[in-house]
Amino acid sequence: MSIKQSAAWKALQEHLESGMRDVHLKELFAEDSDRFSTFSRQAAGITLDFSKQRLRKETLDKLIALAEEAGVKEAIPQMFRGDRINATEDRSVLHTALRKPASDDLEVEGQNVVADVHKSLERMAELVEKLHSGSWKGVTGKTVTDVVNLGVGGSDLGPLMVSNALSGFRAESSNPVAVHFASTIDGTQLADILPKLDPETTIFIYSSKSFTTIDTKANADTAMTWLNLGTGAKEPELKANHFIGVSTQADKMDEWGFAPENQVLFWDWVGGRYSLWSGIGLGIAIEVGIENFQRLLAGAHKMDEHFRTTELKDNLPVLFALAGIWNVDFLDIRSLAVLPYDGRLKSLPGYFQQLEMESNGKSVTNAGQQVDYSTCPIIWGEVGPNGQHAFYQLLHQGTQKVACDFIAPLNRYDEIDNDALRESFKVQHRLALANCFAQSRVLMLGDDAVKSEQTPPPYQRYAGNQPSSTLLIDSVNPETLGALVALYEHKVFVQGVIWDIDSFDQWGVQLGKKIATETEQNLITGEGLDELDDSTRHLIEIARKA
Amino acid sequence: MSIKQSAAWKALQEHLESGMRDVHLKELFAEDSDRFSTFSRQAAGITLDFSKQRLRKETLDKLIALAEEAGVKEAIPQMFRGDRINATEDRSVLHTALRKPASDDLEVEGQNVVADVHKSLERMAELVEKLHSGSWKGVTGKTVTDVVNLGVGGSDLGPLMVSNALSGFRAESSNPVAVHFASTIDGTQLADILPKLDPETTIFIYSSKSFTTIDTKANADTAMTWLNLGTGAKEPELKANHFIGVSTQADKMDEWGFAPENQVLFWDWVGGRYSLWSGIGLGIAIEVGIENFQRLLAGAHKMDEHFRTTELKDNLPVLFALAGIWNVDFLDIRSLAVLPYDGRLKSLPGYFQQLEMESNGKSVTNAGQQVDYSTCPIIWGEVGPNGQHAFYQLLHQGTQKVACDFIAPLNRYDEIDNDALRESFKVQHRLALANCFAQSRVLMLGDDAVKSEQTPPPYQRYAGNQPSSTLLIDSVNPETLGALVALYEHKVFVQGVIWDIDSFDQWGVQLGKKIATETEQNLITGEGLDELDDSTRHLIEIARKA
Repeated sequence: MSIKQSAAWKALQEHLESGMRDVHLKELFAEDSDRFSTFSRQAAGITLDFSKQRLRKETLDKLIALAEEAGVKEAIPQMFRGDRINATEDRSVLHTALRKPASDDLEVEGQNVVADVHKSLERMAELVEKLHSGSWKGVTGKTVTDVVNLGVGGSDLGPLMVSNALSGFRAESSNPVAVHFASTIDGTQLADILPKLDPETTIFIYSSKSFTTIDTKANADTAMTWLNLGTGAKEPELKANHFIGVSTQADKMDEWGFAPENQVLFWDWVGGRYSLWSGIGLGIAIEVGIENFQRLLAGAHKMDEHFRTTELKDNLPVLFALAGIWNVDFLDIRSLAVLPYDGRLKSLPGYFQQLEMESNGKSVTNAGQQVDYSTCPIIWGEVGPNGQHAFYQLLHQGTQKVACDFIAPLNRYDEIDNDALRESFKVQHRLALANCFAQSRVLMLGDDAVKSEQTPPPYQRYAGNQPSSTLLIDSVNPETLGALVALYEHKVFVQGVIWDIDSFDQWGVQLGKKIATETEQNLITGEGLDELDDSTRHLIEIARKA
Repeated sequence: MSIKQSAAWKALQEHLESGMRDVHLKELFAEDSDRFSTFSRQAAGITLDFSKQRLRKETLDKLIALAEEAGVKEAIPQMFRGDRINATEDRSVLHTALRKPASDDLEVEGQNVVADVHKSLERMAELVEKLHSGSWKGVTGKTVTDVVNLGVGGSDLGPLMVSNALSGFRAESSNPVAVHFASTIDGTQLADILPKLDPETTIFIYSSKSFTTIDTKANADTAMTWLNLGTGAKEPELKANHFIGVSTQADKMDEWGFAPENQVLFWDWVGGRYSLWSGIGLGIAIEVGIENFQRLLAGAHKMDEHFRTTELKDNLPVLFALAGIWNVDFLDIRSLAVLPYDGRLKSLPGYFQQLEMESNGKSVTNAGQQVDYSTCPIIWGEVGPNGQHAFYQLLHQGTQKVACDFIAPLNRYDEIDNDALRESFKVQHRLALANCFAQSRVLMLGDDAVKSEQTPPPYQRYAGNQPSSTLLIDSVNPETLGALVALYEHKVFVQGVIWDIDSFDQWGVQLGKKIATETEQNLITGEGLDELDDSTRHLIEIARKA
């Protein structure tokens, strides 16, 4: 049975029709003077204010009933204990196990996964230590100073996002090591970085969950060519000394030629887009140090424990998920803008875009039925204050309904020594905060945000009623960042349970890979074009002539 | 009268209902073996293939009739000759004049604007020369080596996008100068860059059309504090020697204290989001040299001439615009993904996001009526191959309809000297192209992209029918990039004419600025909170306690 046929969904539909569809946020605020306490919660260092969502108390009750009817309460322990909830791939989903302290244990199908996790963390710590102590030497005997992370999707977005966010946290080091990221299949970042690096002092992290990712293989091939040209060393020696492998495929890593001590293993119960907590996070650990990496894990674990143990009505990920369900399935708001008010979080929208859209961009239920409701909206966004000078015009005066997540740290720049410079930067931070609060207010109230004697001309009017949530953290640090990411991960999980889809597979990316391989052959040989559609055939012909 | 009441719109509506709403792209390809030639055009070095849009020949004819009924033919010369088509601000719209060769002239209200433009270009050339010859000295007498562009929105996105795209084009220089960009109000980029720079050898470009942008002022204040601390020089001396001003406000630049020769003027008939062609592009000119900057202008001018002189049915911007109108107003596709298959074009989605959403994120007609149709969709995107590992899952198997623009250069990496390295990179480029063509094919055909004996399980199926356009350029170079950006600019213009909105104002960003100023005071003083909504009041209280 479709969840749409459930009593809870029908009750929400009726509720929608009896006044909620067109109710304005300003009315909702007018009718409840205590709205903030009704619609805000705190956990794991995060304050979630969802009072600017288009909900009444009654709406929330009915949404919680929906979550109950969908089995969210039962699904949570299923995930945490390692049931094979990724049904289409017949796998457990245990990124939460990556965040468990060494003192915990979790036996899954006869294996103590926490012990495995901490063995892998020790390997990471050894590699980090070897680099920062300066004891890692390249094939010509020089000390390694640069690490390039080769990976794409989950093997790139997480490390890159955290690296940007924690720019203020750097490992103590007697041999500072710079970490670079190369992801695109076309080699753009390598073409940019390699001329600035020395092949004798550069190593590569080859990050690929399946060890079959063509994008990363292409970058590794070019890296190998460059190392070979620059050092004169042969491939086996370079593979053993200038590459670290991170994968779930131990055999393939052996076969490729990584030295055994330069391999970091993880497991098929870690989805690519949930893998920054695993060996895929090695680049992060090199940059911020293993202690800060562990603080990141601890922050996520704190959110895990909140999520696992808190009843639905006070459960941050659940409430956050339900506000999203209301927006996309009932109010027909098909996009969600992620708007961090801190430039260090610039990669967060892209990170959450993958997390949500790859997890829940599905339309077939676990029972194989086509859904008859919307699932994941379009997730997009930008550093908020910059967005104000780019696309907020549409949020305020356009015809598209958009939900927004405002994200901001409350404190910043305390570490700057010089008084005048610290003060100047702190003024800048306060301006960012002021803009954050002002924008959600104007999006909600529209014209009513300001008292005005005269009615402005039509082109100066604001309709308001664009819903938003605001997420506050004390400061951007490893713990709060870990908790924030875990909050979104669990939100995605709850929504997937309600939509009755498999949030942990990604079959929708397979066919494109297959066709790309065929298309590459078409491009090389010019053969087989007759079997293609008229557009693709012409595009290939144009490319071959160019 | 609303355009929706026009005969042309009604004809399209009928056409939609008589089979177009649900027709599958694979049927459209099956019924017309010559579809590519029907739905593709070339101009100014760009091939536009829009055959994978959900159009029949008849649809296109009716869309062209709509453009005619909306007065597109008349609107084009109005823009080019400088009529005050930005009605709410009573201004001409003349970014096209910025691209005219010096031999042209254009008199607008008694002023030869082309002469003004080229005077400003000469000023830019002088500044570029002064930097690259090493004759610009800071207050302590050292040669300037670094330039930081301070600007946000239109004063940041254009220069940054072009800087990334033309990374292979660098000015010849006896004194290489690095250009950096700082935009966010919170000071993030300055906090990152300044510790790496030397205040004695660093200057700043203060770019602000209105010279009232608080974000840029905040960054300039911090820059000044840093310069003062690092050089010991006083403010007037620093303003005169370490800052270039770019603005439409000559008086304000004088008043602030820029040296007269360090001021670059532009005009209120250049919209911020159309300003990279003006003095706002100074950072580009410093990076790529004035000749390459002029090639960029020449490429855009070529598209301008195509747009100005070509009949609607063969006019690239017009056809591109009409495909978009069909998607958003008839097929109810509310988002457009911009997907460059070249990592150097990574800032293009963000650039077009501003261009389109700030221009056409409007809902009031020129006559002051509320529109009863959709205007600008959500514009978002990412480097295509990376998106494949992030959000293409949703494009292929989600519930949201999305239109896509695929953008790719045909040639790359010819400049690499070493044979082995060039070959390796060229393989990477070919892989990117193969993926580009494969993805638009799969999005169109779904399951039918592959011949399969068995029916796959439901979770492995692809519905297809997501429409896309493909834009091919020979290579990424100043001319093709200029033409590409101009294509989108004119597309936006045509859509704005059809929607009967003012594409050149941005009233929707004003109220937020006003409220942010008030909110900053609330944050500082803690006063006035009682007058705020319950959410905003609590958020400010939390921030004040933190």
